[in-house]
Amino acid sequence: MKKRTPNLAEQTDGHGYLVHIAYDSVVFGFSGEKLKILVMEYHNTRLFALPGGFVGIHENLNDAVRRGLKERTGLSDIYLEQCYVFGDVKRHKPEILKAILQANGYKPKKDHWLLDRFISVAYYALINYELVTPRPDALSDSCEWYDLDVLPELILDHASIVQKALETLRKNLDEQIVGMNLLPEKFTMKDLQQVYEAILDEPIHRTNFQRKMLGSGLLVRHAKQYSGKAHKAPYLYSFSGKKK
Amino acid sequence: MKKRTPNLAEQTDGHGYLVHIAYDSVVFGFSGEKLKILVMEYHNTRLFALPGGFVGIHENLNDAVRRGLKERTGLSDIYLEQCYVFGDVKRHKPEILKAILQANGYKPKKDHWLLDRFISVAYYALINYELVTPRPDALSDSCEWYDLDVLPELILDHASIVQKALETLRKNLDEQIVGMNLLPEKFTMKDLQQVYEAILDEPIHRTNFQRKMLGSGLLVRHAKQYSGKAHKAPYLYSFSGKKK
Repeated sequence: MKKRTPNLAEQTDGHGYLVHIAYDSVVFGFSGEKLKILVMEYHNTRLFALPGGFVGIHENLNDAVRRGLKERTGLSDIYLEQCYVFGDVKRHKPEILKAILQANGYKPKKDHWLLDRFISVAYYALINYELVTPRPDALSDSCEWYDLDVLPELILDHASIVQKALETLRKNLDEQIVGMNLLPEKFTMKDLQQVYEAILDEPIHRTNFQRKMLGSGLLVRHAKQYSGKAHKAPYLYSFSGKKK
Repeated sequence: MKKRTPNLAEQTDGHGYLVHIAYDSVVFGFSGEKLKILVMEYHNTRLFALPGGFVGIHENLNDAVRRGLKERTGLSDIYLEQCYVFGDVKRHKPEILKAILQANGYKPKKDHWLLDRFISVAYYALINYELVTPRPDALSDSCEWYDLDVLPELILDHASIVQKALETLRKNLDEQIVGMNLLPEKFTMKDLQQVYEAILDEPIHRTNFQRKMLGSGLLVRHAKQYSGKAHKAPYLYSFSGKKK
């Protein structure tokens, strides 16, 4: 009979994973109005965290993150960017990991690999909100969308990770690859402006925005579908570029 | 008598360092004409590599990089940016590390920590070329400035690391914090244009560049020092912002 593969908590020596290396992901989705991210809650702890994970010893770092995101979102073709490596000593708080393991019925020894120091590679992902039903992992009760402005208190330095991801996303906005991954295939100019406003957290001047977007050469405008009210319906656009 | 601290090669179990985690740094300097980077050559190997290193178990990641750069350049207040984490499995080539260790007189066992898989956090640094006399480390013969367009063949994926650092540097150019760290305190508009041209590897239109820079609010223009030829001397500028 094949043995069950031990889970992360049972693998007390980190066997199968690169010790000291974790990743955390800030998964952005756009509800049509608000920018949201996925947050996990650990069983019986009231501890909230970003979806994260570890890298198999024979696994590429980026693939490990894609695997984790697929497990939580069901999506396999996700737009993903590294944003920063969090490597300070002070982020090492073994008591928090210990509490999570204990709440799941484990009694980790002092030298359990999950209680050791980790650096975390932070990623952000942009996904189409409508396509996703978030799924918790084995140690978690829930994986849910939260508005960026009403996040629960997050463990460790996860609030800083969210902040850094948001900064990087804003910085990358000018490359105009961002909206593409957060919107449905066809959208109105207003939809696009709303994504930008949600990301930048400030109102944008409509005319300037429209001029900039139309001048970017990245949009394809579709012919209007005529119906009774057709003359009032806004144009629909899609992106001409390929997804990254 | 105090024992000598074992060096990286002697510490066969990586004791004192985080296993699996390295950093590599692309140290940019500007000669006044060319963009250059620091490259090390390992003893008796003809193997060339970026200056890199490891993170002490009680040391912040960013501090480890600053420590390594200080050892190689003597400078302690260096402008530093993370640019990417190289985490693919295929970058693991223990035979290269083995050759370097052997050329230094070590006979590493198969489970020597330096022969294990590492992910590498890539950084770029911007330093004032004139202030630096590069210094090799214990395993290296030399640490020298190389023109970006005549680099020797680099080990592992270090050529990709240089490329990524250059891309990130170019992307960050618009934040106009870059020239500040590559130029002496006072410089002419032409000096500044030459840094930008060296980084972008393309000529820039003088008038547009000047307008953009003057419009940025980041430059302070200094009064001309009058001498016999003063009416021909160009204005000198410095940056009004603080170094990061």
